Amino acid sequence: MEIKERDLMGGLAKGLKVIEAFSLEKPRLSISDASAVTGLDRATARRCLLTLSAAGYAAYDGKFFSLTPRVLRLGTGCLATMPLPRIVQPFLDQLSESIDQSSSVSILDETEIVYVARAAQRRVMSISLMPGSRLPAYCTSMGRVLLAALPDNETRRLLEASPRTQRTERTITDISALMAEIVATRERGYASIDQEVELGLRSVAVPLLNSRGRTVAALNVGLAATAEGMETVISRYIPSLLSAREELKGMLP
Amino acid sequence: MEIKERDLMGGLAKGLKVIEAFSLEKPRLSISDASAVTGLDRATARRCLLTLSAAGYAAYDGKFFSLTPRVLRLGTGCLATMPLPRIVQPFLDQLSESIDQSSSVSILDETEIVYVARAAQRRVMSISLMPGSRLPAYCTSMGRVLLAALPDNETRRLLEASPRTQRTERTITDISALMAEIVATRERGYASIDQEVELGLRSVAVPLLNSRGRTVAALNVGLAATAEGMETVISRYIPSLLSAREELKGMLP
Repeated sequence: MEIKERDLMGGLAKGLKVIEAFSLEKPRLSISDASAVTGLDRATARRCLLTLSAAGYAAYDGKFFSLTPRVLRLGTGCLATMPLPRIVQPFLDQLSESIDQSSSVSILDETEIVYVARAAQRRVMSISLMPGSRLPAYCTSMGRVLLAALPDNETRRLLEASPRTQRTERTITDISALMAEIVATRERGYASIDQEVELGLRSVAVPLLNSRGRTVAALNVGLAATAEGMETVISRYIPSLLSAREELKGMLP
Repeated sequence: MEIKERDLMGGLAKGLKVIEAFSLEKPRLSISDASAVTGLDRATARRCLLTLSAAGYAAYDGKFFSLTPRVLRLGTGCLATMPLPRIVQPFLDQLSESIDQSSSVSILDETEIVYVARAAQRRVMSISLMPGSRLPAYCTSMGRVLLAALPDNETRRLLEASPRTQRTERTITDISALMAEIVATRERGYASIDQEVELGLRSVAVPLLNSRGRTVAALNVGLAATAEGMETVISRYIPSLLSAREELKGMLP
Protein backbone atom coordinates (compact mmCIF):
# COMPACT_ATOMS: atom_id res chain seq x y z
CA MET A 1 0.00 0.00 0.00
CA GLU A 2 1.33 3.41 -0.96
CA ILE A 3 1.11 5.84 1.93
CA LYS A 4 -0.01 9.34 0.93
CA GLU A 5 0.59 12.53 2.91
CA ARG A 6 -3.12 12.92 3.64
CA ASP A 7 -3.17 9.41 5.14
CA LEU A 8 -0.87 10.54 7.95
CA MET A 9 -1.62 12.13 11.31
CA GLY A 10 1.15 14.61 11.91
CA GLY A 11 0.28 15.02 15.59
CA LEU A 12 0.74 11.31 16.29
CA ALA A 13 4.28 11.09 14.92
CA LYS A 14 5.23 14.29 16.76
CA GLY A 15 3.71 13.11 20.04
CA LEU A 16 5.65 9.84 19.88
CA LYS A 17 8.82 11.88 19.34
CA VAL A 18 8.02 13.82 22.50
CA ILE A 19 7.54 10.60 24.52
CA GLU A 20 10.94 9.39 23.27
CA ALA A 21 12.48 12.69 24.41
CA PHE A 22 12.17 11.63 28.08
CA SER A 23 15.20 9.70 29.33
CA LEU A 24 17.06 8.71 32.47
CA GLU A 25 19.15 11.85 32.08
CA LYS A 26 16.05 13.99 31.43
CA PRO A 27 13.12 12.38 33.25
CA ARG A 28 11.37 15.78 33.60
CA LEU A 29 10.96 18.15 30.69
CA SER A 30 9.63 21.69 30.43
CA ILE A 31 7.93 22.75 27.21
CA SER A 32 11.20 24.41 26.10
CA ASP A 33 13.19 21.26 26.95
CA ALA A 34 10.84 19.07 24.89
CA SER A 35 11.07 21.52 22.01
CA ALA A 36 14.89 21.53 22.18
CA VAL A 37 15.24 17.72 22.35
CA THR A 38 12.73 16.95 19.58
CA GLY A 39 13.35 19.90 17.26
CA LEU A 40 9.61 20.62 17.25
CA ASP A 41 8.57 24.25 17.64
CA ARG A 42 7.48 25.37 21.10
CA ALA A 43 3.74 25.55 20.31
CA THR A 44 3.74 22.02 18.90
CA ALA A 45 5.77 20.61 21.80
CA ARG A 46 3.31 22.29 24.17
CA ARG A 47 0.26 20.76 22.45
CA CYS A 48 1.91 17.32 22.49
CA LEU A 49 2.68 17.54 26.22
CA LEU A 50 -0.80 18.83 27.08
CA THR A 51 -2.39 16.05 25.04
CA LEU A 52 -0.22 13.45 26.79
CA SER A 53 -1.30 14.92 30.16
CA ALA A 54 -4.98 14.96 29.25
CA ALA A 55 -4.76 11.32 28.11
CA GLY A 56 -2.99 10.25 31.33
CA TYR A 57 0.45 9.51 29.83
CA ALA A 58 2.18 12.48 31.46
CA ALA A 59 1.98 14.37 34.75
CA TYR A 60 2.51 18.14 35.01
CA ASP A 61 3.67 19.95 38.14
CA GLY A 62 3.17 23.47 36.81
CA LYS A 63 6.61 23.66 35.23
CA PHE A 64 7.83 20.17 34.32
CA PHE A 65 6.21 17.19 32.65
CA SER A 66 7.11 13.59 33.53
CA LEU A 67 5.80 10.30 32.13
CA THR A 68 3.29 8.19 34.12
CA PRO A 69 3.14 4.38 34.46
CA ARG A 70 0.45 4.44 31.77
CA VAL A 71 3.22 4.88 29.18
CA LEU A 72 4.38 1.38 30.13
CA ARG A 73 1.23 0.09 28.42
CA LEU A 74 2.70 1.17 25.09
CA GLY A 75 6.13 -0.45 25.17
CA THR A 76 5.20 -3.47 27.19
CA GLY A 77 2.19 -3.80 24.94
CA CYS A 78 4.86 -4.52 22.35
CA LEU A 79 6.91 -6.89 24.53
CA ALA A 80 3.64 -8.60 25.47
CA THR A 81 2.78 -9.07 21.82
CA MET A 82 6.10 -10.77 21.17
CA PRO A 83 5.99 -14.52 21.68
CA LEU A 84 9.81 -14.54 21.74
CA PRO A 85 10.37 -13.55 25.43
CA ARG A 86 7.88 -16.14 26.66
CA ILE A 87 9.38 -18.90 24.55
CA VAL A 88 13.01 -18.22 25.41
CA GLN A 89 12.72 -17.37 29.13
CA PRO A 90 12.55 -20.97 30.46
CA PHE A 91 15.54 -21.98 28.27
CA LEU A 92 17.42 -18.93 29.47
CA ASP A 93 16.70 -19.71 33.15
CA GLN A 94 17.95 -23.25 32.68
CA LEU A 95 21.05 -22.24 30.72
CA SER A 96 21.97 -19.49 33.16
CA GLU A 97 21.60 -21.77 36.15
CA SER A 98 23.56 -24.63 34.60
CA ILE A 99 26.55 -22.44 33.68
CA ASP A 100 26.15 -20.11 36.71
CA GLN A 101 26.46 -16.98 34.55
CA SER A 102 24.03 -14.34 33.30
CA SER A 103 22.42 -14.97 29.94
CA SER A 104 20.24 -12.77 27.73
CA VAL A 105 18.28 -12.70 24.49
CA SER A 106 18.03 -9.55 22.40
CA ILE A 107 16.76 -8.30 19.06
CA LEU A 108 17.98 -5.53 16.75
CA ASP A 109 16.27 -2.11 16.52
CA GLU A 110 18.28 -0.12 13.98
CA THR A 111 21.68 0.59 15.57
CA GLU A 112 20.78 -0.81 19.01
CA ILE A 113 20.08 -4.17 20.57
CA VAL A 114 17.00 -4.43 22.80
CA TYR A 115 16.96 -6.99 25.62
CA VAL A 116 13.79 -9.06 25.49
CA ALA A 117 14.64 -11.68 28.12
CA ARG A 118 17.34 -12.08 30.72
CA ALA A 119 18.38 -14.52 33.46
CA ALA A 120 20.90 -12.95 35.83
CA GLN A 121 23.16 -14.92 38.14
CA ARG A 122 25.37 -12.17 39.47
CA ARG A 123 26.00 -8.52 38.76
CA VAL A 124 28.96 -8.01 36.42
CA MET A 125 27.98 -4.88 34.51
CA SER A 126 27.85 -1.45 36.10
CA ILE A 127 24.44 -0.84 34.52
CA SER A 128 21.43 -2.97 35.32
CA LEU A 129 19.88 -4.72 32.35
CA MET A 130 16.22 -5.70 32.06
CA PRO A 131 13.82 -6.49 29.24
CA GLY A 132 13.60 -3.28 27.24
CA SER A 133 17.16 -2.18 28.05
CA ARG A 134 19.24 -1.04 25.07
CA LEU A 135 22.91 -1.13 24.18
CA PRO A 136 24.66 -0.15 20.94
CA ALA A 137 24.96 -3.06 18.49
CA TYR A 138 28.48 -2.30 17.15
CA CYS A 139 30.30 -3.10 20.42
CA THR A 140 28.20 -5.95 21.89
CA SER A 141 28.43 -9.67 21.14
CA MET A 142 24.68 -9.93 20.46
CA GLY A 143 24.84 -6.84 18.26
CA ARG A 144 27.68 -8.31 16.16
CA VAL A 145 25.71 -11.54 15.69
CA LEU A 146 22.56 -9.64 14.67
CA LEU A 147 24.48 -7.34 12.32
CA ALA A 148 26.17 -10.42 10.78
CA ALA A 149 22.75 -11.74 9.76
CA LEU A 150 22.10 -8.71 7.53
CA PRO A 151 23.31 -8.09 3.97
CA ASP A 152 26.69 -6.29 4.00
CA ASN A 153 25.31 -2.99 2.65
CA GLU A 154 22.67 -2.88 5.39
CA THR A 155 25.28 -3.72 8.06
CA ARG A 156 27.48 -0.92 6.78
CA ARG A 157 24.58 1.56 6.76
CA LEU A 158 23.79 0.74 10.41
CA LEU A 159 27.44 0.99 11.46
CA GLU A 160 27.71 4.37 9.76
CA ALA A 161 24.54 5.52 11.55
CA SER A 162 25.86 4.32 14.95
CA PRO A 163 27.43 6.77 17.38
CA ARG A 164 30.61 4.65 17.62
CA THR A 165 31.96 5.74 21.00
CA GLN A 166 35.34 4.55 22.25
CA ARG A 167 33.79 3.06 25.40
CA THR A 168 37.03 1.39 26.50
CA GLU A 169 40.55 1.24 25.06
CA ARG A 170 39.50 -2.05 23.44
CA THR A 171 36.34 -0.85 21.66
CA ILE A 172 36.57 -1.21 17.89
CA THR A 173 35.12 1.93 16.29
CA ASP A 174 36.60 1.88 12.78
CA ILE A 175 34.02 0.84 10.17
CA SER A 176 36.38 -1.39 8.16
CA ALA A 177 37.63 -3.15 11.29
CA LEU A 178 34.03 -3.64 12.46
CA MET A 179 32.98 -4.99 9.03
CA ALA A 180 35.89 -7.48 9.17
CA GLU A 181 34.81 -8.59 12.68
CA ILE A 182 31.21 -9.01 11.51
CA VAL A 183 32.20 -11.07 8.44
CA ALA A 184 34.34 -13.25 10.74
CA THR A 185 31.38 -13.57 13.13
CA ARG A 186 29.17 -14.74 10.26
CA GLU A 187 31.75 -17.35 9.22
CA ARG A 188 32.44 -18.85 12.64
CA GLY A 189 28.80 -18.63 13.83
CA TYR A 190 29.41 -16.77 17.06
CA ALA A 191 30.73 -13.44 18.35
CA SER A 192 32.99 -12.80 21.32
CA ILE A 193 33.65 -9.46 22.97
CA ASP A 194 36.53 -8.80 25.35
CA GLN A 195 35.83 -5.64 27.36
CA GLU A 196 34.62 -3.48 24.48
CA VAL A 197 31.39 -2.47 26.26
CA GLU A 198 33.01 -1.87 29.60
CA LEU A 199 36.23 -2.89 31.33
CA GLY A 200 35.90 -6.14 33.23
CA LEU A 201 33.10 -7.52 31.06
CA ARG A 202 33.31 -10.28 28.47
CA SER A 203 30.53 -11.81 26.42
CA VAL A 204 29.95 -14.50 23.81
CA ALA A 205 26.84 -14.74 21.61
CA VAL A 206 25.22 -16.97 19.00
CA PRO A 207 22.32 -16.26 16.62
CA LEU A 208 18.88 -17.80 17.29
CA LEU A 209 17.20 -19.04 14.13
CA ASN A 210 13.55 -19.66 13.34
CA SER A 211 12.29 -22.73 11.48
CA ARG A 212 13.04 -21.06 8.15
CA GLY A 213 16.66 -20.58 9.16
CA ARG A 214 16.34 -16.80 9.59
CA THR A 215 18.18 -15.11 12.48
CA VAL A 216 15.46 -13.63 14.69
CA ALA A 217 17.40 -12.91 17.89
CA ALA A 218 20.75 -13.35 19.63
CA LEU A 219 21.57 -15.33 22.79
CA ASN A 220 24.58 -14.48 24.94
CA VAL A 221 26.48 -15.20 28.12
CA GLY A 222 28.08 -12.27 29.92
CA LEU A 223 30.76 -12.77 32.53
CA ALA A 224 33.53 -11.07 34.45
CA ALA A 225 36.91 -10.79 32.71
CA THR A 226 39.43 -12.95 34.55
CA ALA A 227 43.07 -13.87 33.99
CA GLU A 228 42.19 -16.76 31.70
CA GLY A 229 42.16 -16.09 27.95
CA MET A 230 39.13 -15.55 25.71
CA GLU A 231 39.84 -18.98 24.14
CA THR A 232 38.99 -20.62 27.46
CA VAL A 233 35.80 -18.56 27.75
CA ILE A 234 34.80 -19.49 24.21
CA SER A 235 35.48 -23.20 24.61
CA ARG A 236 33.65 -23.23 27.95
CA TYR A 237 30.45 -21.42 26.95
CA ILE A 238 29.94 -21.69 23.19
CA PRO A 239 28.89 -25.39 23.39
CA SER A 240 26.12 -24.54 25.91
CA LEU A 241 24.94 -21.63 23.77
CA LEU A 242 24.89 -23.79 20.63
CA SER A 243 22.96 -26.53 22.34
CA ALA A 244 20.37 -24.01 23.67
CA ARG A 245 20.15 -22.69 20.11
CA GLU A 246 19.47 -26.21 18.77
CA GLU A 247 16.74 -26.78 21.35
CA LEU A 248 15.07 -23.49 20.39
CA LYS A 249 15.34 -24.05 16.65
CA GLY A 250 11.92 -24.40 15.08
CA MET A 251 10.18 -23.00 18.18
CA LEU A 252 10.79 -19.38 17.28
CA PRO A 253 8.44 -17.31 15.12
CA MET B 1 -2.80 25.23 33.69
CA GLU B 2 -6.27 24.83 32.22
CA ILE B 3 -6.23 22.61 29.15
CA LYS B 4 -8.45 23.83 26.31
CA GLU B 5 -9.80 21.74 23.46
CA ARG B 6 -7.67 23.60 20.90
CA ASP B 7 -4.55 22.75 22.94
CA LEU B 8 -5.04 19.06 22.21
CA MET B 9 -3.91 16.92 19.29
CA GLY B 10 -6.73 14.49 18.64
CA GLY B 11 -4.57 12.28 16.43
CA LEU B 12 -2.02 11.69 19.18
CA ALA B 13 -4.52 10.42 21.75
CA LYS B 14 -6.15 8.20 19.11
CA GLY B 15 -2.82 6.80 17.91
CA LEU B 16 -1.81 5.85 21.46
CA LYS B 17 -5.14 4.06 21.81
CA VAL B 18 -4.31 2.09 18.68
CA ILE B 19 -0.87 1.09 20.06
CA GLU B 20 -2.58 -0.12 23.26
CA ALA B 21 -4.98 -2.20 21.14
CA PHE B 22 -2.18 -4.68 20.32
CA SER B 23 -1.89 -7.48 22.90
CA LEU B 24 -0.58 -11.00 23.40
CA GLU B 25 -3.98 -12.29 22.28
CA LYS B 26 -4.05 -9.91 19.29
CA PRO B 27 -0.45 -9.25 18.22
CA ARG B 28 -1.54 -8.58 14.62
CA LEU B 29 -4.42 -6.28 13.75
CA SER B 30 -6.16 -5.46 10.49
CA ILE B 31 -7.64 -1.98 10.07
CA SER B 32 -11.07 -3.40 10.98
CA ASP B 33 -9.63 -5.14 14.07
CA ALA B 34 -8.03 -1.91 15.28
CA SER B 35 -11.27 -0.06 14.69
CA ALA B 36 -13.24 -2.68 16.64
CA VAL B 37 -10.85 -2.79 19.63
CA THR B 38 -10.46 0.99 19.97
CA GLY B 39 -13.95 2.13 18.99
CA LEU B 40 -12.40 4.54 16.47
CA ASP B 41 -14.02 4.70 13.05
CA ARG B 42 -12.35 2.74 10.27
CA ALA B 43 -10.86 5.76 8.46
CA THR B 44 -9.29 7.06 11.68
CA ALA B 45 -7.93 3.63 12.66
CA ARG B 46 -6.45 3.37 9.15
CA ARG B 47 -4.71 6.75 9.38
CA CYS B 48 -3.33 5.88 12.83
CA LEU B 49 -1.91 2.54 11.59
CA LEU B 50 -0.43 4.11 8.45
CA THR B 51 1.17 6.86 10.51
CA LEU B 52 2.62 4.29 12.92
CA SER B 53 4.02 2.37 9.91
CA ALA B 54 5.51 5.47 8.30
CA ALA B 55 7.19 6.42 11.60
CA GLY B 56 8.60 2.90 12.07
CA TYR B 57 6.46 1.81 15.04
CA ALA B 58 4.43 -0.74 13.07
CA ALA B 59 5.03 -3.20 10.25
CA TYR B 60 2.42 -4.01 7.59
CA ASP B 61 2.28 -7.25 5.62
CA GLY B 62 -0.47 -6.16 3.22
CA LYS B 63 -3.28 -7.24 5.52
CA PHE B 64 -2.14 -7.12 9.14
CA PHE B 65 -0.20 -4.59 11.19
CA SER B 66 2.13 -5.59 14.04
CA LEU B 67 4.27 -3.47 16.36
CA THR B 68 8.05 -3.19 15.85
CA PRO B 69 10.81 -3.08 18.50
CA ARG B 70 10.80 0.70 18.08
CA VAL B 71 7.65 0.80 20.25
CA LEU B 72 9.81 -0.43 23.13
CA ARG B 73 11.45 3.00 23.10
CA LEU B 74 8.21 4.48 24.37
CA GLY B 75 7.46 2.31 27.39
CA THR B 76 11.02 1.63 28.39
CA GLY B 77 11.64 5.34 27.98
CA CYS B 78 9.31 5.51 30.94
CA LEU B 79 10.93 2.71 32.96
CA ALA B 80 14.30 4.25 32.15
CA THR B 81 13.13 7.60 33.48
CA MET B 82 12.08 6.05 36.77
CA PRO B 83 14.86 6.02 39.37
CA LEU B 84 12.82 3.49 41.38
CA PRO B 85 13.85 0.27 39.53
CA ARG B 86 17.53 1.16 39.68
CA ILE B 87 17.39 1.99 43.39
CA VAL B 88 15.44 -1.08 44.48
CA GLN B 89 17.05 -3.76 42.26
CA PRO B 90 20.19 -4.37 44.40
CA PHE B 91 18.05 -4.60 47.59
CA LEU B 92 15.70 -6.96 45.82
CA ASP B 93 18.55 -9.20 44.62
CA GLN B 94 19.93 -9.39 48.15
CA LEU B 95 16.55 -10.02 49.78
CA SER B 96 15.58 -12.66 47.25
CA GLU B 97 18.85 -14.52 47.64
CA SER B 98 18.80 -14.38 51.44
CA ILE B 99 15.28 -15.81 51.72
CA ASP B 100 15.59 -18.02 48.60
CA GLN B 101 12.26 -16.84 47.21
CA SER B 102 11.18 -14.51 44.40
CA SER B 103 10.67 -10.88 45.30
CA SER B 104 9.25 -7.95 43.32
CA VAL B 105 8.53 -4.25 43.46
CA SER B 106 5.50 -2.75 41.73
CA ILE B 107 3.60 0.50 41.39
CA LEU B 108 -0.09 1.23 40.80
CA ASP B 109 -1.51 2.25 37.42
CA GLU B 110 -5.25 2.71 37.93
CA THR B 111 -6.70 -0.77 38.60
CA GLU B 112 -3.47 -2.66 37.88
CA ILE B 113 -0.08 -3.12 39.45
CA VAL B 114 2.95 -2.78 37.16
CA TYR B 115 6.14 -4.68 38.00
CA VAL B 116 9.13 -2.34 37.93
CA ALA B 117 11.77 -4.69 39.37
CA ARG B 118 11.97 -8.39 40.11
CA ALA B 119 14.44 -10.94 41.46
CA ALA B 120 13.32 -14.49 40.71
CA GLN B 121 14.61 -17.56 42.53
CA ARG B 122 12.34 -20.22 41.12
CA ARG B 123 9.25 -20.36 38.95
CA VAL B 124 6.07 -20.55 41.02
CA MET B 125 3.55 -18.73 38.86
CA SER B 126 2.24 -20.11 35.60
CA ILE B 127 2.85 -16.75 33.91
CA SER B 128 6.27 -15.21 33.62
CA LEU B 129 6.69 -11.83 35.26
CA MET B 130 9.15 -9.15 34.17
CA PRO B 131 9.44 -5.38 34.56
CA GLY B 132 6.39 -3.99 32.79
CA SER B 133 4.20 -7.01 33.53
CA ARG B 134 0.76 -6.22 34.92
CA LEU B 135 -1.64 -7.92 37.28
CA PRO B 136 -4.96 -6.69 38.70
CA ALA B 137 -4.55 -4.82 42.00
CA TYR B 138 -7.68 -6.15 43.79
CA CYS B 139 -6.39 -9.74 44.14
CA THR B 140 -2.62 -9.26 44.62
CA SER B 141 -0.73 -8.56 47.84
CA MET B 142 1.11 -5.59 46.29
CA GLY B 143 -2.17 -4.26 44.88
CA ARG B 144 -3.86 -4.41 48.29
CA VAL B 145 -0.95 -2.53 49.87
CA LEU B 146 -1.02 0.15 47.15
CA LEU B 147 -4.82 0.50 47.33
CA ALA B 148 -4.55 0.78 51.14
CA ALA B 149 -2.38 3.89 50.71
CA LEU B 150 -5.19 5.77 48.91
CA PRO B 151 -8.15 7.61 50.44
CA ASP B 152 -11.15 5.25 50.86
CA ASN B 153 -13.26 6.90 48.15
CA GLU B 154 -10.42 6.54 45.61
CA THR B 155 -9.85 2.90 46.61
CA ARG B 156 -13.55 2.21 46.16
CA ARG B 157 -13.60 3.91 42.76
CA LEU B 158 -10.70 1.74 41.56
CA LEU B 159 -12.29 -1.45 42.91
CA GLU B 160 -15.54 -0.59 41.14
CA ALA B 161 -13.60 0.02 37.91
CA SER B 162 -11.73 -3.32 38.21
CA PRO B 163 -12.87 -6.36 36.28
CA ARG B 164 -13.07 -8.45 39.49
CA THR B 165 -12.70 -11.95 38.09
CA GLN B 166 -13.12 -15.01 40.32
CA ARG B 167 -9.61 -16.27 39.43
CA THR B 168 -9.69 -19.08 41.99
CA GLU B 169 -12.29 -20.27 44.52
CA ARG B 170 -10.45 -18.10 47.07
CA THR B 171 -10.46 -14.79 45.16
CA ILE B 172 -12.36 -12.06 46.99
CA THR B 173 -14.47 -10.16 44.44
CA ASP B 174 -17.12 -8.47 46.60
CA ILE B 175 -16.44 -4.74 47.01
CA SER B 176 -17.35 -4.58 50.72
CA ALA B 177 -15.22 -7.62 51.53
CA LEU B 178 -12.32 -6.11 49.54
CA MET B 179 -12.69 -2.74 51.31
CA ALA B 180 -12.59 -4.54 54.68
CA GLU B 181 -9.41 -6.41 53.61
CA ILE B 182 -7.82 -3.15 52.49
CA VAL B 183 -8.65 -1.33 55.72
CA ALA B 184 -7.16 -4.28 57.66
CA THR B 185 -4.07 -4.13 55.40
CA ARG B 186 -3.66 -0.42 56.20
CA GLU B 187 -3.91 -1.11 59.94
CA ARG B 188 -1.48 -4.03 60.13
CA GLY B 189 0.98 -2.58 57.61
CA TYR B 190 1.17 -5.57 55.27
CA ALA B 191 -1.02 -7.67 52.97
CA SER B 192 -1.06 -11.43 52.57
CA ILE B 193 -2.71 -13.36 49.76
CA ASP B 194 -3.43 -17.08 49.89
CA GLN B 195 -4.02 -18.38 46.36
CA GLU B 196 -6.31 -15.59 45.16
CA VAL B 197 -4.27 -14.92 42.01
CA GLU B 198 -3.75 -18.55 41.15
CA LEU B 199 -3.90 -21.86 42.97
CA GLY B 200 -0.60 -22.82 44.54
CA LEU B 201 0.66 -19.24 44.91
CA ARG B 202 0.94 -17.22 48.09
CA SER B 203 2.34 -13.74 48.56
CA VAL B 204 3.02 -11.18 51.29
CA ALA B 205 3.68 -7.48 50.65
CA VAL B 206 4.60 -4.28 52.46
CA PRO B 207 4.45 -0.66 51.28
CA LEU B 208 7.67 1.19 50.37
CA LEU B 209 7.68 4.78 51.62
CA ASN B 210 9.65 7.79 50.45
CA SER B 211 11.33 10.26 52.79
CA ARG B 212 8.06 12.16 53.21
CA GLY B 213 6.31 8.98 54.38
CA ARG B 214 4.27 8.59 51.19
CA THR B 215 3.73 5.07 49.79
CA VAL B 216 5.42 5.06 46.38
CA ALA B 217 5.61 1.32 45.65
CA ALA B 218 5.02 -2.13 47.11
CA LEU B 219 7.54 -4.90 47.85
CA ASN B 220 6.51 -8.54 47.98
CA VAL B 221 7.65 -12.12 48.33
CA GLY B 222 5.84 -14.75 46.27
CA LEU B 223 6.11 -18.44 47.10
CA ALA B 224 4.52 -21.81 46.54
CA ALA B 225 1.59 -22.73 48.78
CA THR B 226 2.62 -25.59 51.07
CA ALA B 227 0.94 -27.48 53.91
CA GLU B 228 2.07 -24.93 56.50
CA GLY B 229 -0.34 -22.15 57.43
CA MET B 230 -0.25 -18.54 56.23
CA GLU B 231 0.74 -17.53 59.80
CA THR B 232 4.05 -19.35 59.35
CA VAL B 233 4.59 -17.66 55.98
CA ILE B 234 3.85 -14.25 57.49
CA SER B 235 6.10 -14.71 60.51
CA ARG B 236 8.90 -16.03 58.29
CA TYR B 237 8.92 -13.34 55.58
CA ILE B 238 7.36 -10.14 56.96
CA PRO B 239 10.43 -9.32 59.13
CA SER B 240 12.73 -9.49 56.05
CA LEU B 241 10.33 -7.34 54.02
CA LEU B 242 10.07 -4.78 56.82
CA SER B 243 13.82 -4.58 57.23
CA ALA B 244 14.30 -4.10 53.44
CA ARG B 245 11.65 -1.37 53.68
CA GLU B 246 13.57 0.35 56.48
CA GLU B 247 16.81 0.23 54.49
CA LEU B 248 15.07 1.78 51.49
CA LYS B 249 13.28 4.48 53.48
CA GLY B 250 14.54 7.91 52.51
CA MET B 251 16.23 6.61 49.35
CA LEU B 252 13.08 6.59 47.26
CA PRO B 253 11.88 9.62 45.29
